[in-house]
Order: sequence, then C-alpha cells, then structure tokens
Amino acid sequence: MYFVGIDLGGTNIASGLVSSDGGTIICKDSVPTQKERPYQEIIKDMAMLTSEVIKKSGVSMDEIKSIGIGSPGTPDCKNGIIVYNNNLNFRNVPIRKEMQEYLDLPVFVDNDANCAALAESVAGAAKGTKCSVTITLGTGIGSGIIIDGKAYSGFNYAGAEIGHTVIEMDGEQCTCGRKGCWETYAAATALIRQTKKAAEQNPDSIINKLVDGDMYKVDAKTAFDAAKLGDKTGKMVVERYIRYIAEGIINVINIFMPEVLVIGGGVCKEGDYLLDPLKDIVKKGVYSQEGLPQTQIKTAQMGNAAGIVGAAMLGM
Amino acid sequence: MYFVGIDLGGTNIASGLVSSDGGTIICKDSVPTQKERPYQEIIKDMAMLTSEVIKKSGVSMDEIKSIGIGSPGTPDCKNGIIVYNNNLNFRNVPIRKEMQEYLDLPVFVDNDANCAALAESVAGAAKGTKCSVTITLGTGIGSGIIIDGKAYSGFNYAGAEIGHTVIEMDGEQCTCGRKGCWETYAAATALIRQTKKAAEQNPDSIINKLVDGDMYKVDAKTAFDAAKLGDKTGKMVVERYIRYIAEGIINVINIFMPEVLVIGGGVCKEGDYLLDPLKDIVKKGVYSQEGLPQTQIKTAQMGNAAGIVGAAMLGM
Repeated sequence: MYFVGIDLGGTNIASGLVSSDGGTIICKDSVPTQKERPYQEIIKDMAMLTSEVIKKSGVSMDEIKSIGIGSPGTPDCKNGIIVYNNNLNFRNVPIRKEMQEYLDLPVFVDNDANCAALAESVAGAAKGTKCSVTITLGTGIGSGIIIDGKAYSGFNYAGAEIGHTVIEMDGEQCTCGRKGCWETYAAATALIRQTKKAAEQNPDSIINKLVDGDMYKVDAKTAFDAAKLGDKTGKMVVERYIRYIAEGIINVINIFMPEVLVIGGGVCKEGDYLLDPLKDIVKKGVYSQEGLPQTQIKTAQMGNAAGIVGAAMLGM
Repeated sequence: MYFVGIDLGGTNIASGLVSSDGGTIICKDSVPTQKERPYQEIIKDMAMLTSEVIKKSGVSMDEIKSIGIGSPGTPDCKNGIIVYNNNLNFRNVPIRKEMQEYLDLPVFVDNDANCAALAESVAGAAKGTKCSVTITLGTGIGSGIIIDGKAYSGFNYAGAEIGHTVIEMDGEQCTCGRKGCWETYAAATALIRQTKKAAEQNPDSIINKLVDGDMYKVDAKTAFDAAKLGDKTGKMVVERYIRYIAEGIINVINIFMPEVLVIGGGVCKEGDYLLDPLKDIVKKGVYSQEGLPQTQIKTAQMGNAAGIVGAAMLGM
C-alpha cells in the first residue's frame, strides 16, 4: 500500500507518494502555494499536484490508502479542518471535505510539528519506538509528541506547545504573551539575540570580527564559530545556550520519559560540539532512579522529507 | 464484574472491591503495613487482607477480574515489579509474582499518583473524559497523566514527574538536585516556607498572631486565613503562591491540553478563593486560539477513595 503526504507550506505545496514499509518517498513534486488566493484554489492545486504525482508514479489508485496533510497552525484532526493558520490566513478551512471533491480517499490533517515527529518516529531518529518527542529549534520551538505511535496534541489538538512552557518565570517576553517561555531562550532566534548582546557587551570578542562589526550578519552559527576559535565570549554564549536547551529537555524527559528525544533545527549541524555537553547536563538533571533505561537524545534524520513522510504516516 | 484495588502505603495497606460501573467501593478493609518487615510478609498480608475483603463482600471469585496495586515509587508496570520505593525500602520487588502465589488473578501495578489520576478520570472530577491530568499539591507535587483512558508515564514508567519541571531556572533548591522545580514553589510545603519567610519579614502581619509567634505552627492554611482577615502580607503570599501554581498549570495545559485538569491536596479546601484567581491567570496565559474548547480546571473529588479505586481501575 501507498500513502500520499502533502506538506502545505506558506511558500510551496509539496506532495509525495510514500510506501508503507516506512518512509520511502517513491515520487514527489511541488508547486508554489501563492498564499494570497482563496483556500479553494490552494486546495484545488494540492489535489491536482497529487493526481499528477500519483500518475507519474505509475501506482494505481487502488493501491493508495489515504492522503495526509501537514500544515502549520491548529488543526481539528477529527473533523479534517484547519482551524487556524496565520501564515495562509486560514480560518476553519474544511480541507478534508474540499480535497475529497477531487480525490476519493480518506483525508487526514495535522500540524507540521506533529508530522515531523511522526516522520522521525516511523522512519527517522526514533524509528522502532512507540514513544518519542521531537523538538525543533528554529524561529520558535516546534514540538511533536508521539505516544503509542500516534501524534498527541490534546483534546482540542492545540497542545504539544512545549516551546511555550515557562522555564524562567517573569523572564524574557515571548510572542505568546507570557514571559520566560523556553523558546525565548532556546530557539535559534534566541541564540542570535544572545550572541548580539554578548558581542555588544564585549567589543573585543571574535564575534564582532566574524561579522565585520555588522550585527545584522549574526546568525545561529556565529557564537559556535567564535567558541571553536577559542573566543571567551563565544564560549560563554554557547555554554549558556546549551544550558537553556538542556533545562527544557530535562523538563520534557521528566514528564514524558520518551524512548528517544529528537532534536532538529540548523543548530544540530554543530554535532557533538552541541550534543556532548548537552547530554552531560541532561544526564545529571533527569529525575530518575538508577538501573532504569534512560531516554536517548538524537538529532533529527528526516530533513526536508519529514513534511511529506510525516503527513503520509497520518493515514497509517 | 469486580476489580480489587490495593493502596499500599507506608502506614497502612488498604484493599477494596470496586464495581465495574465505575468506582463504587462495595467492600474494603485495611491493616498496618509494618514497613520494616521483609516484602514477602507485607505482600502476604496484602493477599490475606484481600481474601478477607472478597469473602466479606459475598462476591464469588469468578466475578473478580483482576487485582490492581498502587504504591509510591517507580513501578515496572509491564513486569509487575516495584523497582524502587524509598519509603518501604523496596528494590525490584516482584509484587505480581508474589501476589499470585496466594491469589490466582491478573495483577497490575502502578504508582499512587497514576492511580489517583485514573480514579479521578473514571469516577471523579474528570469522569467521562479520555484525557486529563491530575496534580496533587502536597509535600511535593504528585502528578498523573491520563491519555486515551490510560495512565501515561513513559517507556520506563518513571515519567509524569511534572513537579520536577523547572519554572525558575537556577531558582530554589529542589530535593531532586535541580534548582527551580515547580514543586519548590507550588507544593504545600513551599507555601508554608513562603508564609514563614513573609511573616518573619513583616512582624506586624496577622500571620504572626495567628500562630502566636511560633513559626512551627505555620501550615498551608495560615496565609489564606490571614489574607481573608485582610492582612496585606497574607494577601501577598497567597497571590504569589497562586501565581506559582498557575505558571505550572499553564505549562501543563500548553503541553497536554487535557479536557480536565484536576487539582488535589489540602489547599483545595480554599475553594473559589484559590480557584477564581487561578483560573483568571491561567485563562490569560494559555497558548490557544479563540474559538477552541478550553481545558476545565476542577478540584479532586475522590479523596481517600482514590487509592483503592485508581488501583482497581488498572485492570479495567
């Protein structure tokens, strides 16, 4: 059997056919979303794209079991509705019903963070486990919780917002309205802000040289680059940033005790330079008795395929 | 059908027969644990007590489906072992195997916080829901997570330690080794500490009069009593304490979006004086779009029955 996975983004719609053996994309394609259009047109394009992908793959419709759609925002998974997607300006869009006007298949909907977690769980870093959590350190913190092989996001599908748990009460202002959310300290955006601040306070830091004194050039790599060159300020920023990631991860482990905790996002390219000290702090902080098996921390493996594969897995 | 529930505590062992209609204890009894004894003797007493309860109930053995045992500490639910119970000094005690020497029934084991959550979920404040979280504010913070009607505590059964999530990085020292865990701010013990400190810093506070100047007499009610009498310091302590509870609860809701969040512990006796401001703060802080159904916050209803009923429900 095969499963269609659609990754509905603000820039592109990607559709792919995924095999049931766990996560191989056998055929895929994409079109621009052109997000200013009415949802009916966007969904029509999703259906047309999917029909073409199926045709191109040579797989007969009888062998296709379902269509899964992953999209940012809040889904109503039960009723196949996108309740809210700020980027596409979707409000209560009946995406299942609309898709079924074109393709006579079961349609499943979930958000992109849940799809990413599902992809890691079925075919990536958490393959073979029933219970994992995937954390993506990006502009914010995306998180997906897999329990018994299924994405969990609460009775109204609006949960799994682990980035919006406070780790520093009355701390940094978060976009969500609270102060001190984990994502204000541990998202890639937070690292950039921390790097800029430290560079401004330490004019002699190599960070300033790496960006030619232009704070707009600071990115999530800059502090790591400086630290690796032996820069004291860079090391301080990186050390503190890893502490921030670790505090949130220990919280997640103490709550979920997932078999695998997957970390995604560009910062993972730092590899063991990030992971080794992170694992050390986590090991010391986790609330757990000796002799019990412990959560493994791994970096995400699915990359760009996560969107399509995870969405396809919604139908599995 | 009927289910046996055993509440194995440090002081008493309570055993009861619970009906399958959801949480009525039709017969129960208890004996002292005498915890200094070898586990074999304690478990033998559990079995003898249970046999007597069954006999007294008049229910035939054919009508009894299973035995559930709730105990503090870390269980291995799959293998029916209590891995660790500090209070009873249990290490890897094969409680299922040992019980089955006396009673030929399936035996289930879980920890007391999970049993309490299960009891609330089946017969208490979260009755009729599939997904709830029960938080008990006591010496520490106990927490039980119910997902799809089952207690969730991770792949090694050591999770659901929501009290040990940091809400104030590098904050108050916690018994678990970390600093700033939620339970160091929001447990009943924390409120007592906060009350004492405020009373010492404010000698004119009514708190000092309420305890005749004796700080040993401060309990979890004192600050509430002072606040209700109009005392400024008492009000400040209560207001701050409710903020601490709220921050953790918002974290829990943002992660789990449970249909009902149940709060237990002596402090719930304060009723709306606690709940009204708490709900206000939570409502403002939760990360959720308009138009979605929201988590209800309720106080625990099962009281002392929670241990037996929750343990019995393990077999349901």
